[in-house]
Amino acid sequence: MIGIGIIGLGTVGTGTYKILKEHFALIKHRTGLHIEVVKIADIDLKRRKGLTIEKGIFTSNALDVINDRKVHIVVELIGGINPAYDYILSAIKQGKWIVTANKALLAEKWDKLFNVAARHNCEIGFEASVCGGIPVIRAIREGLVGNRILYILGILNGTSNYILSRMTDEGMSFNDALQEAQRLGIAEQDPTLDIEGIDAVHKLCILTRLAFHSPIKVNDIIRDGISRIEPIDIGFAKEFGYKIKLLAVAKERNDTIEARVEPAMLPVDHPMSNVNGVYNATYVVGDMTGPNLYYGKGAGAEPTGSAVVSDIVDMALRMREGRKTPIISVSMVEKKIRSGEESRVPYYIRFNAQDRPGVLSKISGILAKYNISISAVIQKGRKESGHVPIVMLTHEAIEKNLKQAKREINKLPVIKGESVHIRIEEGML
Amino acid sequence: MIGIGIIGLGTVGTGTYKILKEHFALIKHRTGLHIEVVKIADIDLKRRKGLTIEKGIFTSNALDVINDRKVHIVVELIGGINPAYDYILSAIKQGKWIVTANKALLAEKWDKLFNVAARHNCEIGFEASVCGGIPVIRAIREGLVGNRILYILGILNGTSNYILSRMTDEGMSFNDALQEAQRLGIAEQDPTLDIEGIDAVHKLCILTRLAFHSPIKVNDIIRDGISRIEPIDIGFAKEFGYKIKLLAVAKERNDTIEARVEPAMLPVDHPMSNVNGVYNATYVVGDMTGPNLYYGKGAGAEPTGSAVVSDIVDMALRMREGRKTPIISVSMVEKKIRSGEESRVPYYIRFNAQDRPGVLSKISGILAKYNISISAVIQKGRKESGHVPIVMLTHEAIEKNLKQAKREINKLPVIKGESVHIRIEEGML
Repeated sequence: MIGIGIIGLGTVGTGTYKILKEHFALIKHRTGLHIEVVKIADIDLKRRKGLTIEKGIFTSNALDVINDRKVHIVVELIGGINPAYDYILSAIKQGKWIVTANKALLAEKWDKLFNVAARHNCEIGFEASVCGGIPVIRAIREGLVGNRILYILGILNGTSNYILSRMTDEGMSFNDALQEAQRLGIAEQDPTLDIEGIDAVHKLCILTRLAFHSPIKVNDIIRDGISRIEPIDIGFAKEFGYKIKLLAVAKERNDTIEARVEPAMLPVDHPMSNVNGVYNATYVVGDMTGPNLYYGKGAGAEPTGSAVVSDIVDMALRMREGRKTPIISVSMVEKKIRSGEESRVPYYIRFNAQDRPGVLSKISGILAKYNISISAVIQKGRKESGHVPIVMLTHEAIEKNLKQAKREINKLPVIKGESVHIRIEEGML
Repeated sequence: MIGIGIIGLGTVGTGTYKILKEHFALIKHRTGLHIEVVKIADIDLKRRKGLTIEKGIFTSNALDVINDRKVHIVVELIGGINPAYDYILSAIKQGKWIVTANKALLAEKWDKLFNVAARHNCEIGFEASVCGGIPVIRAIREGLVGNRILYILGILNGTSNYILSRMTDEGMSFNDALQEAQRLGIAEQDPTLDIEGIDAVHKLCILTRLAFHSPIKVNDIIRDGISRIEPIDIGFAKEFGYKIKLLAVAKERNDTIEARVEPAMLPVDHPMSNVNGVYNATYVVGDMTGPNLYYGKGAGAEPTGSAVVSDIVDMALRMREGRKTPIISVSMVEKKIRSGEESRVPYYIRFNAQDRPGVLSKISGILAKYNISISAVIQKGRKESGHVPIVMLTHEAIEKNLKQAKREINKLPVIKGESVHIRIEEGML
């Protein structure tokens, strides 16, 4: 018997418990394993309501889980850095193996966690930390083990993707789409972590470490949220054949890594551009496989619980065999991090300009000075206000040049209000 | 050191050898493993040309690989049933572990292979047998281990998918698209295995066994090829919002399994309908995860080689730990197989009818007699010949009723030539 202890009986904890109960026989049939939840902790005693949990299993003290001799695997599902971090460390020191869905903790404390784990022959499973029910960690770490990873493109946050999908499909404003998402329980009352890209940064940090073996930090990842995206830009993107998505991108070239999370334009015919609503997906280019794409539900009790259970089963199989070496390599190789300023991609830019002759020539003159060439222009007809949007796509440009040119253009008397620039991610097809 | 022996230095064998050579250091860094190809057999001695293979490694006799004491894992990449089957059995009996990409062999000889393997504590890896570079076997077996699988929808044959994509995007005829595929090396000179769905049946057989633990046989899978598909039906499919794909479908309901490979219509907004060209994908619905989709290259030296290498690494890690129990469950549970006749889906049907009043009423009268109701009709305008296509979508209908009604309608004097029916697969969104 492999004993499981769960800390945190929220959404994912409940899903995990449910799967281990309902599919006890299925898992036993597939693996021969007898996996049983022997202890569950949650500070909120009401949480066990609606679940059939035998007497003596539920506790309000996480240490009861960690200290229980029958618990072989501690499943940490409370989220956040503290006290989750302390719980995990003390469980590791007691010889337990760990399964966690805690992306913030992994992103912030990776080195420490895996170093302590390695010293104690402990394995940390974290399939549930990225892309919920999609086995993307397993795919990258094991399925693509014979590949140098060249590129990762992720839609890693269901809330942002839902909001952008609604804005794209229904023409809703950001605020209306956010409010709808909140009403449906897709967005939190304080949506900052999701809409500002922080959650996606944590997940990209994990994927980048796995794929490139580089000890990248959360602060190394360039980040921008979706709240600045306006329906007008979604409309122009469509005219040019693009969709705006909150994209998590990481690439390595010449031992230099660039990683960023921000709203960007993706060609409509890219397979990732059809990842809509709350769905998540990760697109990975290996040097041998070429593109791979993994798609599914990125959150929710059962999908994320399914990922937790896959780690539990994997560990239980290896425990049965007496395995003691963690499979994940903890030897990271320090690599250069490319700052945003040096990044080089095509851009979409929109200016609000007076509708008079010579404006386009002035704008393109400044762009040319910064070595930015234009690949397409849309200039819409006359408006009452006398100001019209001028929209351009550029060829590849260096980010600092683009920003400098934009600042200079914004100072022109013919320009009114805020100009907008959005990266174009061709998506390494 | 884990010694690898490769039998068959064709496309996949070359890819495998190349990856193990070029990424020796990468794999060692990730896993600590020293994996070395110590023996390669191919009857065609010219095949080693272009590869740097050390002296003494290459042989024209497969038994030299099997009998080599330094070979721990035998990689069978010659394909077909014989002599591959004998080679694998004799390697198992010598205590070797097996990696194979041989879908025909797995589909035909699964029970025997895994029974012999279990008796010898041998593991058989077959990630490369389905969907080339996409780790779909690992995803289903390990990633979704906590799920009852409800539904599998695969685009498993790149050649057929390429041909149908060209017919759809360019309006080409089947023959022109096939000839183009042959010219590009995407289709074989004898394309039967691919275009008649035989290759996809082998792969679906493997996926069905894995997902449903049912000892399904190749002959249990209903099969139809793509050569009967005409551009006119692709055109009408588009008008109705569908794409025609060679779909491999398996589902389980009430302990009854239905599995089939045939050209069918898939809604354009289904995520699988954007799997184009030579790409493969598998869409799996688990009861906990909901839909998952895995997409990538289904064939080629490096993608398929990458899958072979992922199995090799997985085995080598477990050999290092002294692991001896194969992880795959060989205990299959006999389940009922639903025959095509009892299957129940919506249909597309096209009749060539005389353009005169009352024809539609006659056709729909016969359909009604067989309890088939119509959800949409397109009747195109008058033609010189006096015959026009009448196209219908039906609500769900039982296959034997549909076929019987079609036969009866074909006998009407107003009907000319062959009528066409194509299944509609809604794809369990």
